[in-house]
Amino acid sequence: MLNETHDPALRSWVASANSAGTDFPIQNLPFASFRRQGSDEAFRGGVAIGDQILDLAAVARTGMFSGDAGQAVQAGAQPRLNDLMAQGAPVWSALRLALSRALREGAAEQAALKDCLVPQAQAEYGVPARIGDYTDFYTSVHHATNIGRLFRPDNPLLPNYKWVPIGYHGRASSIGVSGQRFRRPVGQTMPPGATQPSFGPCKRLDIELELGIFVGTGNEPGDPVSMAQAEDHVFGICLLNDWSARDIQAWEYQPLGPFLSKNFATTISPWIVTLEALAPYRVAFERPADDPQPLPYLDSEANRRQGAFDIQLQVGLQTHRMREAGQGDASICRTSYRHAYWTVAQMVTHHTVNGCNLQPGDLFGSGTLSGPTLDQAGALIELTAGGKNPLQLPGGESRTFLEDGDSVVLRGWCEKPGAARIGFGECRGTVLPARA
Amino acid sequence: MLNETHDPALRSWVASANSAGTDFPIQNLPFASFRRQGSDEAFRGGVAIGDQILDLAAVARTGMFSGDAGQAVQAGAQPRLNDLMAQGAPVWSALRLALSRALREGAAEQAALKDCLVPQAQAEYGVPARIGDYTDFYTSVHHATNIGRLFRPDNPLLPNYKWVPIGYHGRASSIGVSGQRFRRPVGQTMPPGATQPSFGPCKRLDIELELGIFVGTGNEPGDPVSMAQAEDHVFGICLLNDWSARDIQAWEYQPLGPFLSKNFATTISPWIVTLEALAPYRVAFERPADDPQPLPYLDSEANRRQGAFDIQLQVGLQTHRMREAGQGDASICRTSYRHAYWTVAQMVTHHTVNGCNLQPGDLFGSGTLSGPTLDQAGALIELTAGGKNPLQLPGGESRTFLEDGDSVVLRGWCEKPGAARIGFGECRGTVLPARA
Repeated sequence: MLNETHDPALRSWVASANSAGTDFPIQNLPFASFRRQGSDEAFRGGVAIGDQILDLAAVARTGMFSGDAGQAVQAGAQPRLNDLMAQGAPVWSALRLALSRALREGAAEQAALKDCLVPQAQAEYGVPARIGDYTDFYTSVHHATNIGRLFRPDNPLLPNYKWVPIGYHGRASSIGVSGQRFRRPVGQTMPPGATQPSFGPCKRLDIELELGIFVGTGNEPGDPVSMAQAEDHVFGICLLNDWSARDIQAWEYQPLGPFLSKNFATTISPWIVTLEALAPYRVAFERPADDPQPLPYLDSEANRRQGAFDIQLQVGLQTHRMREAGQGDASICRTSYRHAYWTVAQMVTHHTVNGCNLQPGDLFGSGTLSGPTLDQAGALIELTAGGKNPLQLPGGESRTFLEDGDSVVLRGWCEKPGAARIGFGECRGTVLPARA
Repeated sequence: MLNETHDPALRSWVASANSAGTDFPIQNLPFASFRRQGSDEAFRGGVAIGDQILDLAAVARTGMFSGDAGQAVQAGAQPRLNDLMAQGAPVWSALRLALSRALREGAAEQAALKDCLVPQAQAEYGVPARIGDYTDFYTSVHHATNIGRLFRPDNPLLPNYKWVPIGYHGRASSIGVSGQRFRRPVGQTMPPGATQPSFGPCKRLDIELELGIFVGTGNEPGDPVSMAQAEDHVFGICLLNDWSARDIQAWEYQPLGPFLSKNFATTISPWIVTLEALAPYRVAFERPADDPQPLPYLDSEANRRQGAFDIQLQVGLQTHRMREAGQGDASICRTSYRHAYWTVAQMVTHHTVNGCNLQPGDLFGSGTLSGPTLDQAGALIELTAGGKNPLQLPGGESRTFLEDGDSVVLRGWCEKPGAARIGFGECRGTVLPARA
C-alpha cells in the first residue's frame, strides 16, 4: 500500500537526503544500531536520512512524539532494535509517518530534530538486533541449479526444490555488521583423489550474495503464520554475505548440511529497510508456467500478484593491491531479488507451518540470489565455474576464490520512474590470513 | 580429577540426599533455573540436594560465601545461568567445594541454609540458560549407521563419518524444559510412490535420546579451542530429546539438512550435571582398532584415556491409556553414553577449529545415542526398523511411531562400585494433537 510517505516529490530539510544518488532519501528511513566511532557511548537505534543518522535516543529525550510513534521511539532508543521489532506493523508504520512528516522541508520539528543528527561519517554500527535464531534459505532456483551441478553433476536440482522452500539453521554468534574482518577458516577437506582428509586453511573461500530478512513480531509455539499474515511479521530487509568455505563444505555437508563451512562469519549491512519503504518496488512473483504450483498453504493471490521485490543487487571485489593503489572495488555481479523462486511471505509461512516459533530479531537469509544468467550469479563458485574460469580484475589481477586481504562489498537499491530511489548502503567484509 | 567432593562416604544434613536411590546426593550438586510452581516469583538458579532445591538467590542474600564461591552464588542467583557459565571452571569448582562443605552433616552453615531450601515437589523449572546457539551433533556411529541404512540403503555410513564429528545448527527458540507439551507438527511429506507431496500432520513422529552439553566460557571469533582446553569450556550435561518428524525429514533434508522436521520442539532436563560431578565416571574412548585415527587436532592422550562418560540412559514411553490407568512409563531402550564415537572435547574443538565463536549458554546435542545392539537404539525409527516391527507395550498397546497423548521420559544416571550414584532427574515431553 503506497501512502504519503512514498511521494517521490517529498524533500527533507536534511539537504543531503535530496541529492540524486543518495541511498537514504526521506522515502527510505531505514533503521540501524549505532554510536559515535571510537566512543564508549551506548549503542542505540538510528534512522538514516541523507548522510546523517537521526539518533532515536536523542529523539526520545525530546519527548516530541506521542502515541504509537512515541512508543516506537522509546523502543528504538534501546541498544538493539528487538523491542521496536516486537511492536508490530501498525506501530512501525506510525513511526514512519511521524518521522516522514517531521523530516520534511518546512516541518516545525526541524529546530528540535537538527540536534538529534549524527553524521554517518562519524558512526560505528552494531548488529541491529539480538538475533535469537538465524535461518538460511535457498530461494534462488538458479543458484540451486548452478551449485547442485557442481556438487552433484548427475542430480543438480533435487526433486523437493520446487515444492519446499528449503532452509536450514545457521549460526547467530558469528554474524557481524559491515566492516567485519575475519580470519580465513581452517578445517578438514578431502582433496580430489585423496584417500584421507587434509587439514589446513580453506582454499576455496567464497561469498554468497543474499538479503537478510529481520523478523518483527513473533508467533507462539504451535501457532503457524498464514500467507495472509506473513508479511506483518517482517520488520525489514538488509544485505547479507554468507561467506562459505567450499572445500570444507563439500566434505562435511552430508547428511546434515553445511556447518563449519558457513559458521565462521556472516556479514550484514547495518541498515534495515522496512517493507513499507519497499512498497513501491513490489512485483509479481514469476513462477514458470510449467512448474508445479505451490501447495495451498504457500499460495495466495497477493503473493502471486506482488510477492516479489525488485531490489537491484551488486557485488564488488577489492583486492589488497587495489586498495593500496587507491582503487575502488570492481563489480563482479549484478542481479535483482525479483528472480527468487520463493518469496519472503513463503519463507515465514513455511518456517512456522510445523508450529516453530519465531521471535523478534530472528534473521532469515534469502540464500544466494543468483539470477538466470551467469553474470548474475551471486557466488564465485558459480561465476568461475567451480574455479575453472578465473575472473579478470582491473589492474591485471584475477580471482577464482578469495585471497587474503580481499574485501567484498554488497550493495542494494531500488529505482524506477515515478518512485524515489532508495538504497541499502553497503555490506563490506574483509578476509584476514588464517591463524598461524 | 577426583577430590573431596566425590568421596562416596559424604552425607548431607538434607536427609533425602542420603537415600540409596536418589539422583541428587551431595556428590552431584547439579544446577537448574526454577521458581515455585504457579507463583510469579522470578526464576533463579538452584542446586539439587536430595528432594530439595538450594535456592541460590536466597543463599546470595545470606552473604555466607565470599571469594570465587560468593561471586558464583551471585551469578547463580540470576534468572538464567549464563553469567555463572561465563565464570569458568575454577569458579564452578570453588562453588562446588563450598556447597559440598556447607551441605555436609555437621556443617555450621546448616542453620542458615535450611531456610534456603525449596522442595522439588513445589518447583517449576525454566530453560536453564539463554541459549544463543544450539548445535546438534551426530556422535553415535551406531545411530548414523542404523538411520543411514533407512534413508540411504546403498550408502548407510558416509565416508566422512569417521573423520568429521558431523554437526549442524538447530533451533534455539523451541527448546523447552521437561514437561514440555507440543502439538504434533504439520508439514509436507512425499509418500512412497506419490508424484506430488502431501500436506498434513506428521505420521512418523519420533524421539531422539540425546545428551545436551552446555557451553560455559566461550571463545573469541577466530580463536579455536584446542583439545587440551576443550573441557574447560563445558559447564555440564543434561538430558535432551530431539523430537523428529521422520516423514517431513525424509522429504526436506536434501541438500541442506533437517529443518522443520526438528525445529518444532526440543526438550531438555532442568538439571545440568557438571563435568566435575561426572569425574568418577570417565572411561576410555574406545575407537575400533581398524578405524582411522582422528586427525591430530581432534586427538589427545587424555581423550583416548578418559574422553568418554559412562552415563546410563533409558527411554520410557507412557501412552495416554497407560497414564489414565495409573501405569508408569514402559522402558523401550537402555544404553550408555560410553558408546559414542566422538567425545565432548572433540565436539568443542571441532566446532571452533574454523574460528567459530561459542558463547556461555550455547547448547550442543550429542546426537541420538544408540548403542551397538538393537535394544540400545535411541529412536523409534531404529527400534521398529523404520516402522516395520511395532514395539509391544504392557497393557496390550503397540507403537511404531508416537501417537497423540504419548509421553516420553528420558532418564540418565551413573553408578559403579566405590562411587556415589548420581543422576540427571528426568526429561519428559508430551505430544498433543495437531492443530485442527
